[in-house]
Amino acid sequence: MEKPKILILMGSENDHEVMEDGFALLRELGVAFRLEVSSAHRHPERTAAFAKGARDEGIEVIIAAAGMAAHLPGVIAAYTTLPVIGIPLKGKSLHGIDSLLSIVQMPKGVPVATVGIDAARNACILACEILGIKYPEVQQKLDALRDKMKREIEEKGKKVRR
Amino acid sequence: MEKPKILILMGSENDHEVMEDGFALLRELGVAFRLEVSSAHRHPERTAAFAKGARDEGIEVIIAAAGMAAHLPGVIAAYTTLPVIGIPLKGKSLHGIDSLLSIVQMPKGVPVATVGIDAARNACILACEILGIKYPEVQQKLDALRDKMKREIEEKGKKVRR
Amino acid sequence: MEKPKILILMGSENDHEVMEDGFALLRELGVAFRLEVSSAHRHPERTAAFAKGARDEGIEVIIAAAGMAAHLPGVIAAYTTLPVIGIPLKGKSLHGIDSLLSIVQMPKGVPVATVGIDAARNACILACEILGIKYPEVQQKLDALRDKMKREIEEKGKKVRR
Amino acid sequence: MEKPKILILMGSENDHEVMEDGFALLRELGVAFRLEVSSAHRHPERTAAFAKGARDEGIEVIIAAAGMAAHLPGVIAAYTTLPVIGIPLKGKSLHGIDSLLSIVQMPKGVPVATVGIDAARNACILACEILGIKYPEVQQKLDALRDKMKREIEEKGKKVRR
Amino acid sequence: MEKPKILILMGSENDHEVMEDGFALLRELGVAFRLEVSSAHRHPERTAAFAKGARDEGIEVIIAAAGMAAHLPGVIAAYTTLPVIGIPLKGKSLHGIDSLLSIVQMPKGVPVATVGIDAARNACILACEILGIKYPEVQQKLDALRDKMKREIEEKGKKVRR
Amino acid sequence: MEKPKILILMGSENDHEVMEDGFALLRELGVAFRLEVSSAHRHPERTAAFAKGARDEGIEVIIAAAGMAAHLPGVIAAYTTLPVIGIPLKGKSLHGIDSLLSIVQMPKGVPVATVGIDAARNACILACEILGIKYPEVQQKLDALRDKMKREIEEKGKKVRR
Amino acid sequence: MEKPKILILMGSENDHEVMEDGFALLRELGVAFRLEVSSAHRHPERTAAFAKGARDEGIEVIIAAAGMAAHLPGVIAAYTTLPVIGIPLKGKSLHGIDSLLSIVQMPKGVPVATVGIDAARNACILACEILGIKYPEVQQKLDALRDKMKREIEEKGKKVRR
Amino acid sequence: MEKPKILILMGSENDHEVMEDGFALLRELGVAFRLEVSSAHRHPERTAAFAKGARDEGIEVIIAAAGMAAHLPGVIAAYTTLPVIGIPLKGKSLHGIDSLLSIVQMPKGVPVATVGIDAARNACILACEILGIKYPEVQQKLDALRDKMKREIEEKGKKVRR
Repeated sequence: MEKPKILILMGSENDHEVMEDGFALLRELGVAFRLEVSSAHRHPERTAAFAKGARDEGIEVIIAAAGMAAHLPGVIAAYTTLPVIGIPLKGKSLHGIDSLLSIVQMPKGVPVATVGIDAARNACILACEILGIKYPEVQQKLDALRDKMKREIEEKGKKVRR
Repeated sequence: MEKPKILILMGSENDHEVMEDGFALLRELGVAFRLEVSSAHRHPERTAAFAKGARDEGIEVIIAAAGMAAHLPGVIAAYTTLPVIGIPLKGKSLHGIDSLLSIVQMPKGVPVATVGIDAARNACILACEILGIKYPEVQQKLDALRDKMKREIEEKGKKVRR
Repeated sequence: MEKPKILILMGSENDHEVMEDGFALLRELGVAFRLEVSSAHRHPERTAAFAKGARDEGIEVIIAAAGMAAHLPGVIAAYTTLPVIGIPLKGKSLHGIDSLLSIVQMPKGVPVATVGIDAARNACILACEILGIKYPEVQQKLDALRDKMKREIEEKGKKVRR
Repeated sequence: MEKPKILILMGSENDHEVMEDGFALLRELGVAFRLEVSSAHRHPERTAAFAKGARDEGIEVIIAAAGMAAHLPGVIAAYTTLPVIGIPLKGKSLHGIDSLLSIVQMPKGVPVATVGIDAARNACILACEILGIKYPEVQQKLDALRDKMKREIEEKGKKVRR
Repeated sequence: MEKPKILILMGSENDHEVMEDGFALLRELGVAFRLEVSSAHRHPERTAAFAKGARDEGIEVIIAAAGMAAHLPGVIAAYTTLPVIGIPLKGKSLHGIDSLLSIVQMPKGVPVATVGIDAARNACILACEILGIKYPEVQQKLDALRDKMKREIEEKGKKVRR
Repeated sequence: MEKPKILILMGSENDHEVMEDGFALLRELGVAFRLEVSSAHRHPERTAAFAKGARDEGIEVIIAAAGMAAHLPGVIAAYTTLPVIGIPLKGKSLHGIDSLLSIVQMPKGVPVATVGIDAARNACILACEILGIKYPEVQQKLDALRDKMKREIEEKGKKVRR
Repeated sequence: MEKPKILILMGSENDHEVMEDGFALLRELGVAFRLEVSSAHRHPERTAAFAKGARDEGIEVIIAAAGMAAHLPGVIAAYTTLPVIGIPLKGKSLHGIDSLLSIVQMPKGVPVATVGIDAARNACILACEILGIKYPEVQQKLDALRDKMKREIEEKGKKVRR
Repeated sequence: MEKPKILILMGSENDHEVMEDGFALLRELGVAFRLEVSSAHRHPERTAAFAKGARDEGIEVIIAAAGMAAHLPGVIAAYTTLPVIGIPLKGKSLHGIDSLLSIVQMPKGVPVATVGIDAARNACILACEILGIKYPEVQQKLDALRDKMKREIEEKGKKVRR
């Protein structure tokens, strides 16, 4: 799995900080991804081109992060039948409820798999779960991650009990 | 002003009923408009084509109505620098707060002139106000409409006082 | 693809009406699914059993619908690393904003792919998009569905123009 | 009453700070409690085990705190008929309205006694009120606490009047 | 347990319909209750009298239902250290979010155990769970109710599978 | 008008900072007021006593400030037919929407005159407007305050134009 | 008190039905009022004229009802220092939360005494409470109304107990 | 185009910081504007005068910014049939949802073209788009701005890929 199967699109460099949490997860699991910047509104042709070309370049899941009237995931989903995961980003005024509704309330026919506000890490785990139905090694890594989370909880429990 | 200068886009025939209130206003004022159906998600190419071709066909204002994760006005605005008016439509679950936020909270650089939920008539008045800065006869019709509204209020006042 | 790869869980028979829209889509595409009733709160053991056993029974995507404090999708996701799609159902009082937030705002480590309120059809399309990365015939059916939607929009456009 | 009758579950160590306000109340009243860390999503088996085993270990009230799509109190309530008190914690984006709705809007048959956002102290007072119907000494301590609050209000009144 | 240990207060006769669901549960479990009408705003003295006198009359849990700026549960809690359960009722305009916040967001020192909007049945189950820590027969009835719910889910599952 | 005709009640000393803005207005206008601390929940008897005794002590308007499940203004209004002004205070989690709804959505028969969130100054102006219908000198001071506000706007306009 | 001291302004005849509940209260108490129709947006001059002329015509309290972006009460308050009571009306989409915020969140210097959504009766009671500080007979009628409400609650209590 | 065709009204100097982003855009595009301070509530006559006189002074678009119960744009729109753009400003408590609803939900007959919360820059771009239908040079500048935005996105994309 050396060629990236996950394409991650974000609207600006500023989103990098929030997204980092997801990039780290993918690096930790050893799952390659391709990162691009685009905007549904400021560069619609570029966005359409990424969406239309994705499958031919071997992409199997697309993650798109956007804030406010967050159209990026929906616009990408309009151009492809690959699964598209949307991350609503928290903006300055409405704390992400605007981007959440703009992403999740898609009309009939064109879904976006929405995760929580600023939930970059969960978006990347979800992308891996999707890949996992085809690539058993990805699923095994996810199962190992779950086991690790359980041990961490157990460790915390011991700590608190003291 | 025989050629339509207003393009109205709606996502489905079902929106016709809500929009009728605006069509009536335009007919009342004698302002021609062109009506089309498109969808940001179900037919992005068609939507882009309408937006890109509008100016060359003599359109000067675009009105787009959409519900839920309402991307239509924003996607059109992404392809043109004509003024775009967005009408958030009330959906089945969230009463239009989802479409309102999806339309009004546009990112820097690409505005949509948003009117109230289901406010088709106000969208059409706003379109006429915009045309009115260029076509004095449209502005005069709007001024006359205002006078008529005032007389109606005065009539209602007399009625209630009795 | 005769054996169902999609497991659909709903909390009660009453949800059947809303879900029907999704079942119809799967039948239309000829994608088999297994339907079960369970509840995260009223029968947690049964819910856990479905989630834990799903992969061994050949399931590759799980769809769970729930209303109010909608825990069903999250609880299932807690027991499996298969992709889990959550459908927030509109309840009697808060119109689905409660179930939407209860499903989408999952903590770090355990995502749920959330679709819109009552969006059973979109959940099923998303499930097919996920299967589509592994089964080309499913992807082809989705592409055909998209083409059909485009033609419908074009038809509506012609109708409205008259 | 040396053996703890209150079990407090929280999702992570980070919640300790908010919860401290409740622990202090219990220490002030001299009511023993047992503190554990678990997660409805990251360690469902552990959570189920705590819930199922609670009564046999002498627990009579369970308090569970959780943020975002807060499933912990509801999942515990699914496994026991002991009274379960849920504390919605304020998250980073939606200020606790997500966790409040995820906890309070439980389906028919499995209630969670919900207190205010971050209201750890009130959760602990409520737990004592419940124990108070069985253990008169706990009720007497609560009555004394009420008297103390009244005197404090009276003191503040004097101070402000000056 | 012939003397009622649960006092149920509602603000008007009109609330009877919503509350009926809870009364039925108590009758089903054979748990006696006392029903009264009062209002925090329209008859504060009566409300205070019920709250203050409850313990002496053998009451061990109080349930109060109220809509809009729902003060009834909080005002009762102000006069007693018995556990008070609040049911937010759905009003005509804001669908119960007003009553939910008015009940659950109690200040430090005086908690109200809040259940979901219009959740009369869950309030009564919670009251029984509280009594159940003192009266084993009530707890046993609750456990039986849980088993019944499980069997119902299993029955529905069979039905749906056909 | 030496004897205070306005009674101001707040729930804790901490509210002093927000309220200061209102106190300053009253001092500026030379309108005497009496300040007290009480709590609808922590000291209901004291609150009732202030409300019932107010008229006999010459009070003609009561202002009450409270946060969260803000019952103080409504509880006072329950005990008097003097006009009661409620100030919803911004809490830590929900930014005052909880206290606003808890104050403004009063049931039929017992109104509270609600001002904006943290709007202590406006509450005091409103109290003066009410007194102004009886005491012409208060009304004249308010008219002068309005004139002053107009001049300030005009000054700012000049400044900005430069 | 034959000359009306209360001016009631509403935006359209359609509001008559909601307002009727308040008119009935005033007739019941025998308090005269003047009713007018105006609109902050459709007839600003008329609205300003009513507000400016009110005091000279003997008006002592103004009640204004408006829906959606409800500016009527605030615009009236801008032209007078008489107390202005605002009634937020429930609109078709957002259930009155829009009109509530548009009325209650007034800027510093110009308050509106806001009552609950559609709370015409409470607005009229509040107007009477304000008049009551000057006209003892109005206050006495309000006190009698309170007594009547108490007796009604007591009657309902008896009925329910049977 | 030396004489300003855009009138910008803001309620106080404090809004200058948020508005600066829009002023910069207009300076960048070389589009003249006139800036004034007024308030719908604190100086209604001044506000009415600006609105009524605007057209005669050559103004073709008005931008008004306001927070909380933001009436400024609506009140201006009541006095003119020029297009009025409203900018909802984020206040201290409700993050701009109050001003957004107060501006966008205008009644039938008097629209306000609403942009996002604090979206001063977008308001100014929208004003230019409106002028652009009459003044081709303004439209050309907007088209150039769009091209610049596209190049910036492309640059960011290159940077991120490294």
